[in-house]
Amino acid sequence: MNVESYVRDIQDFPKKGISFKDITPLLNDAEARAFCLTTLKNSLSNVKIDKVVGVESRGFFFGILLAQEFNAGFVPVRKPKKLPFDTLSASYELEYGYDTLEIHTDAIQKGDKVLIHDDVLATGGTAKAVCELVEQLGGEIVQVNFLMELTFLNGKDKLEGKNIFSVLKY
Amino acid sequence: MNVESYVRDIQDFPKKGISFKDITPLLNDAEARAFCLTTLKNSLSNVKIDKVVGVESRGFFFGILLAQEFNAGFVPVRKPKKLPFDTLSASYELEYGYDTLEIHTDAIQKGDKVLIHDDVLATGGTAKAVCELVEQLGGEIVQVNFLMELTFLNGKDKLEGKNIFSVLKY
Repeated sequence: MNVESYVRDIQDFPKKGISFKDITPLLNDAEARAFCLTTLKNSLSNVKIDKVVGVESRGFFFGILLAQEFNAGFVPVRKPKKLPFDTLSASYELEYGYDTLEIHTDAIQKGDKVLIHDDVLATGGTAKAVCELVEQLGGEIVQVNFLMELTFLNGKDKLEGKNIFSVLKY
Repeated sequence: MNVESYVRDIQDFPKKGISFKDITPLLNDAEARAFCLTTLKNSLSNVKIDKVVGVESRGFFFGILLAQEFNAGFVPVRKPKKLPFDTLSASYELEYGYDTLEIHTDAIQKGDKVLIHDDVLATGGTAKAVCELVEQLGGEIVQVNFLMELTFLNGKDKLEGKNIFSVLKY
């Protein structure tokens, strides 16, 4: 299946000079979505997954679908002040400044086998922060997967030692 | 199944005086989540669904799970400036001021059978705005469903004529 054709390039979004990969056509097509879900699932065979972590907010889509496939708990990692219970937070560097992500402290138990999902692997800053949160709670990261990887940004370098998988590579 | 026990009351969130219904324990439990999904799905029998609309961001969770169940397209309705393509927007009144939601103009085709999902039916302002967006694009709303309804806020009054379903009522 030509999944690439369901990812739309939007020029100058969210700001001038950026070419944004819009996955809404893919979400809106049951067949393309099922293909991606199966591809992500099949990259993990004979593995028990206790928790799937999805990163706000485009990581929620396939994150919760994967949790359902693996009969696992789903854990949202969110921007500050969105999660109402006790949280742990991690900050990561952006081009200018910092951003922060939070996880509920009771969301993962020590020894849980954890799958992390986000839509895009770019510079790897976000994924690295999420890995830190999961490991601080005692989770064992089985895989970090993405719909797509922007290989020219070398995000993998920030995730050394982790099992990485992407459906699409640009 | 006692699903209520997976919804946690958080006092004074997001601001003083509000008791927030936290669904993260429910998302984190595969059995409770599956129970809610099945209950939502079974409220619609022998109906073809072309599109499931999920409302940012807690409506994304069961929204996309329902889309998968019905083999339908998934359409996110988002806060302003989050959707990158051409959008249609609707504003609705809050206690103080207004809020706005957007949908991609190409997300729904005329005559599509549409299921709308959000996590909570409170005053109904959000759901009403989403119905307007869907109908402006020519979609036919089959049902508007929620994980829970706060009945004391009479949100149903704003959705007159619509088929409403909630897993839990408070």
